[in-house]
Amino acid sequence: MEESGIRGKLEERESNDMPSTPPIDQVSHLALDIGGSLIKVVYFSSDCNCSVDDDQDKRLPEKNLGIASANRNYCTLSGRLNFAKFETHKIDDCLEFISSKQLHRCGIQMNSDGWQHEALECDKNIIKATGGGAFKFANLFKEKLGVSLDKVDEMNSLVAGANFLLKAVSSEAFTYRDGQKEYEQIDHNDLYPYLLVNIGSGVGMIKVDGDKKFERVSGTSVGGGTFWGLGKLLTKCKSFDDLLELSHKGNNRVIDMLVGDIYGGMDYTKIGLSSTAIASSFGKAISENKELEDYRPEDVARSLLRMISNNIGQIAYLNALRFGLKRIFFGGFFIRGHAYTMDTISVAVNFWSKGEAKATFLRHEGFLGALGAFLSYKGHGLDGLMTHQQVDSLPKSVCWNGDELRSSVFGNLNENGSIECSVQLSN
Amino acid sequence: MEESGIRGKLEERESNDMPSTPPIDQVSHLALDIGGSLIKVVYFSSDCNCSVDDDQDKRLPEKNLGIASANRNYCTLSGRLNFAKFETHKIDDCLEFISSKQLHRCGIQMNSDGWQHEALECDKNIIKATGGGAFKFANLFKEKLGVSLDKVDEMNSLVAGANFLLKAVSSEAFTYRDGQKEYEQIDHNDLYPYLLVNIGSGVGMIKVDGDKKFERVSGTSVGGGTFWGLGKLLTKCKSFDDLLELSHKGNNRVIDMLVGDIYGGMDYTKIGLSSTAIASSFGKAISENKELEDYRPEDVARSLLRMISNNIGQIAYLNALRFGLKRIFFGGFFIRGHAYTMDTISVAVNFWSKGEAKATFLRHEGFLGALGAFLSYKGHGLDGLMTHQQVDSLPKSVCWNGDELRSSVFGNLNENGSIECSVQLSN
Repeated sequence: MEESGIRGKLEERESNDMPSTPPIDQVSHLALDIGGSLIKVVYFSSDCNCSVDDDQDKRLPEKNLGIASANRNYCTLSGRLNFAKFETHKIDDCLEFISSKQLHRCGIQMNSDGWQHEALECDKNIIKATGGGAFKFANLFKEKLGVSLDKVDEMNSLVAGANFLLKAVSSEAFTYRDGQKEYEQIDHNDLYPYLLVNIGSGVGMIKVDGDKKFERVSGTSVGGGTFWGLGKLLTKCKSFDDLLELSHKGNNRVIDMLVGDIYGGMDYTKIGLSSTAIASSFGKAISENKELEDYRPEDVARSLLRMISNNIGQIAYLNALRFGLKRIFFGGFFIRGHAYTMDTISVAVNFWSKGEAKATFLRHEGFLGALGAFLSYKGHGLDGLMTHQQVDSLPKSVCWNGDELRSSVFGNLNENGSIECSVQLSN
Repeated sequence: MEESGIRGKLEERESNDMPSTPPIDQVSHLALDIGGSLIKVVYFSSDCNCSVDDDQDKRLPEKNLGIASANRNYCTLSGRLNFAKFETHKIDDCLEFISSKQLHRCGIQMNSDGWQHEALECDKNIIKATGGGAFKFANLFKEKLGVSLDKVDEMNSLVAGANFLLKAVSSEAFTYRDGQKEYEQIDHNDLYPYLLVNIGSGVGMIKVDGDKKFERVSGTSVGGGTFWGLGKLLTKCKSFDDLLELSHKGNNRVIDMLVGDIYGGMDYTKIGLSSTAIASSFGKAISENKELEDYRPEDVARSLLRMISNNIGQIAYLNALRFGLKRIFFGGFFIRGHAYTMDTISVAVNFWSKGEAKATFLRHEGFLGALGAFLSYKGHGLDGLMTHQQVDSLPKSVCWNGDELRSSVFGNLNENGSIECSVQLSN
């Protein structure tokens, strides 16, 4: 059932708003998610040349792949998916990065020596891109790199990226509590429905019912951009990461008004509020004759982080409750694997749900949209990656390195976060 | 059905945690709600002496009032309920106010000339008080004024105050949209259930099913204390009201990241977000080389107000949805009759509910808790006010001035917000 369901979705994808398959030398191995604060980049790099795989036809029936050509060569290219990010207002750095690595020209072609993964000389390159910046910066990419941005819908991309990670990458999802990560084994037959909470500059909340079956049900403007924007104004921090680091050293009780501050140190037990619960974020600032400069930036950063994490956790839970969703996955660059952020979100979901729901995080949290855009390439370059979704129930998939992939993902992720994989090529 | 329901609740109130009826000369006409930011004061002032009312027995059956004494004199005292507020960290001003008006000694007694409303010389005065400060400042009141604070539960008080206002005072509730107030005629038989959202320093959300039938279902720490606390740090404003005033002149688009800022001026129509929707509150601050001083305080105040009002409206709606509540009443001092605040909350509720729910406001928004504490006095002084709840379906109630009350509330509220009323006295 599940397999055919996925197949059905893939066929739907084929017939939808995807562009026609570009010639092989125009396929790029780069995809972008250009958000309000950050540009997320996913690109494929090979570490070997192609090897022709004669058994492909048996394992990848044509109808599943949607490949129309009858005569073909297959090739499996090993390599890895790499991830990089840039601040959107420093988009020139991103352009420079792409240009210096020639990522926009990097593709696959077959020449007299066989399949080659190399820089191509072509002025018709197309790059899949999602996020609002795919619209906003289309002309800039054309002008600076000579490439067209092929716009992929943001919600589609987020969902495709999340589904891919949850199905393809072992140890991708984990819960977090009291400093402890616990990896979740996702049962692919029991994944849907779930709530996907993507915390970027703003926050989007999407009910996901299957591949390409989803609905944006809620969101909030109080997200990563609020943390960073307000935090920058309040602390003069120079970067998001510095601000997160700073918050780690702070004490929110200096500036938050706690229940105990109002109740003279007592709990308000009747409604289950302990004396240490935050009654009013930043509320203590009103009663003290202090100015901003009198507070330690780390305490301000901590209060801000708690306020925003708590709020997102609460709104996420209320939406999960509304649709009866037990599982809430949090993605987006706000989190950045930051222990205190994850802990606060986890506590908020646990508190408001009275233990009924729990927050789950993704290791590639920030790259859901970019991965989704990457997966939207159709044709020779990346069908192999896409097919992965169809064969994920096999221990050793034809287009992944099977157990080797799993262990390598598990082992290498902490270093650079790249995912080892292979793509299937055909002409 | 409804009337007996209310009667039942009153009987329940009688038998609950109320203190035994104090001697008449200890009854105060003052009640307090001491919150984290503000002290709210309600006190009764008479404008005439007592007149004995011989018809009382017919209209107010003893069992309804729960009055045990068989031989009694009745008296109706006309006057008004007055409202005042002080900042909690300036509690000395509040003590001085009470002391100068001798409110803590003001009560009713019968002497040889009949009923008298006058200052009493008594050192055993008790004042009903709610909010966390009733615990925190109990010793201070004892020391400075020689009075004991009789603590009344905060949620009980809020609900009693809201129910009282919604049933007793015409033109108390109104909706707000595009600068227009529209008064709601509350059908007393169709009032429950409703969601009461009290926006103080923090925000409490209470599902109200009847008199004394309620449950605190949610809340958020992002409330009035956050607006004021963060606003004070960001703008150096000296008071909450100044900050509200400032926000009125600001433009949130200067500092909020709008959908159009991300999408190059375009809407994200697929998910119904217009280009002017806020994608990320304060998000624009991240990409500009500006420090706090480079922004106009009014723009910062406006973004802050929109962020918090929007957020409260959203969480309130999600909770109303959760329990199938059509009506959401907003109270608490955050609102202060401020047009832009009410408009933002109304728009948020309308947006998230897709027009299904609407926000309703209360004219005495900030005094729900204090009024509830006031209503909790039992015995001679204020039974009359309480009985009002039983007779509210009569056009002319025995203990209110009937139509005269209604018109006077409507007419006078904008000047000082006091409510004309009369109390019934018996010994």
